[in-house]
Amino acid sequence: MRYVVIMAGGSGTRLWPLSRQGTPKQLLKLIEGRSLLRLAFERALALVPADRVLVVTGAAYLDEVAADLPEVAPANLLGEPIGRDSLNAMAWPAAVLAARDPDAVIAQLTADQLIEPVDAFVRAVEEGYAIAESTPDALVTLGVVPASAHTGYGYLQRGAELDGFPGACVVREFREKPDAATAAAYVASGEFWWNAGMFVFAARTFLEQLQLLEPEVHAAVLGLAAKPATLPDVFPTLKKISVDYAIFEPVSRGLGSARVVAVPLPISWKDVGGFGSLAEVLPADEQGNVVDGLGVALAASDNLVMNTVEGHVVTVLGVAGLVVVHTPDATLVTTLAGAEQVKALVGKVAEAAGPNYV
Amino acid sequence: MRYVVIMAGGSGTRLWPLSRQGTPKQLLKLIEGRSLLRLAFERALALVPADRVLVVTGAAYLDEVAADLPEVAPANLLGEPIGRDSLNAMAWPAAVLAARDPDAVIAQLTADQLIEPVDAFVRAVEEGYAIAESTPDALVTLGVVPASAHTGYGYLQRGAELDGFPGACVVREFREKPDAATAAAYVASGEFWWNAGMFVFAARTFLEQLQLLEPEVHAAVLGLAAKPATLPDVFPTLKKISVDYAIFEPVSRGLGSARVVAVPLPISWKDVGGFGSLAEVLPADEQGNVVDGLGVALAASDNLVMNTVEGHVVTVLGVAGLVVVHTPDATLVTTLAGAEQVKALVGKVAEAAGPNYV
Repeated sequence: MRYVVIMAGGSGTRLWPLSRQGTPKQLLKLIEGRSLLRLAFERALALVPADRVLVVTGAAYLDEVAADLPEVAPANLLGEPIGRDSLNAMAWPAAVLAARDPDAVIAQLTADQLIEPVDAFVRAVEEGYAIAESTPDALVTLGVVPASAHTGYGYLQRGAELDGFPGACVVREFREKPDAATAAAYVASGEFWWNAGMFVFAARTFLEQLQLLEPEVHAAVLGLAAKPATLPDVFPTLKKISVDYAIFEPVSRGLGSARVVAVPLPISWKDVGGFGSLAEVLPADEQGNVVDGLGVALAASDNLVMNTVEGHVVTVLGVAGLVVVHTPDATLVTTLAGAEQVKALVGKVAEAAGPNYV
Repeated sequence: MRYVVIMAGGSGTRLWPLSRQGTPKQLLKLIEGRSLLRLAFERALALVPADRVLVVTGAAYLDEVAADLPEVAPANLLGEPIGRDSLNAMAWPAAVLAARDPDAVIAQLTADQLIEPVDAFVRAVEEGYAIAESTPDALVTLGVVPASAHTGYGYLQRGAELDGFPGACVVREFREKPDAATAAAYVASGEFWWNAGMFVFAARTFLEQLQLLEPEVHAAVLGLAAKPATLPDVFPTLKKISVDYAIFEPVSRGLGSARVVAVPLPISWKDVGGFGSLAEVLPADEQGNVVDGLGVALAASDNLVMNTVEGHVVTVLGVAGLVVVHTPDATLVTTLAGAEQVKALVGKVAEAAGPNYV
């Protein structure tokens, strides 16, 4: 049967004071009162019923995730005692699902982005499921047709088309985040897609590749699936490595027993990583002010005001181009350019005000 | 005996969101945790003991005033049911004190300003007391030697010196707030002082002038002093007029039976009316940032950050020349120039967020 695993980990100081050590950005109710995780879950529901959606997150965030997604049963919330990179965020759930259902086919999706339109996304993932079900040696990766020569994403180079699935193709090679000239050349060639970091595969196929390429991790996650109580002891010993380095890149070079197949995602793809991208995705007034939460702008333009506190009003008067973020215990006033230094500010805040503020 | 009456009324939307309809600026703990009222009270204690200090304020503020000045007995806190301008803020306490002590001499002082040095201020008020005690027909007004051709103050023109009190002089004429050219001419002439709005007089003399010039008010305040319970009924019926128009200006023109005498106040005189003056009087860091309350500035200069909320940190990052004010239920981000429009903003906030925020 088909399953969705949503990855929601990581902290994200770039959105401080919205995001904190205790609240990763996927859990922030950034978009009209809904979190990126909630939006990812609602996309998943277009693919599978709620009882076949799993979320893998940090153990510290389990309560918040459960509150955000009350439809997901506790057994489907997997909390990592410590972050061990994307290989284990995929291998552990794959082992858990394979133990429940040997024929499990998994769409492993992220919760970092705003995705439009959702129906094109759903169709691409469904094509991924169909490929994984019909082509036992395929690990599917989703590729985004580049909208620009972005240097912040990894790229994949398309190879031959896959029989029976027009548009899908075997991946010739994965490339790391390029410099600007290389990115421009990639885009000009028409041969490269952004690597979306979202995958579809039969649990069995993925675990076979894992056994070939990282046998210790394979043994460990099968053990975890059989004896969940060993999690706190076993998880921290897992090799910390990305799934790209451990599986997809070696398999694309023929080092496993499968192929990597790319399916195009014809969507707009907005990574919500900083205040600039938030300002782009939230609705603005006629003066270009984005006011999220209770706020008033007067004689002001192009400001981003984010206020998470009910019963508190945030006002901007006679100012332009500012970022004003108000949370229950911290307020930030900066510009989009100034926000690049927010990490340094967070360090100074921890020093001056204490660790609870960061 | 000598008494001090401190006037602490008015709202002061120019300092919103620090000042509110419920909290006039004199009660805000703006200066190292002390209010302007508290500073005025401490100046008064250099003149008279605490049991001879009265405060006249709005009835709605009595509890806050009592909390700020626990040394002042309830009988010495006069709460106006409604503001009836400065004549009644002086006439009512004068009647109250005259009933207690027919020989009362009153220094009627404001709480709107920062005054430095305090000892020069105290000496000037003591000279005022001495004049009022020795010269029964004198109403003393304190005049500030102008530091600039300020258009925000009224002026008084000096006349002949008063015998026995070098520096003090009879006031020839009061002038309203001038335009810039007129103010410059006043200052160039050397004949004009700023009208400080602070006065020293024998209660008897003041009440005699009141009887001559505003007999209805005179009768009413004597009635109030005799029957305090009538306050809610009587006070709202009092004529609303400033003491300058009702008493000092007519007396200076010979319409009463007394003279107006000016005593110079050789002090620096800072009216704390807006954020600009607050930025001037509070200590700044090396980058010119004034940070009052828990705050952090990084790569920022010439900002005024006022944070009244304990347990909340306000940060400015990569910005210059901003005014950031944070209170429990409202935050303002503006510039000194923008702050001129704060009244319009307050109107918009009342509309958008509700009357509790203003």
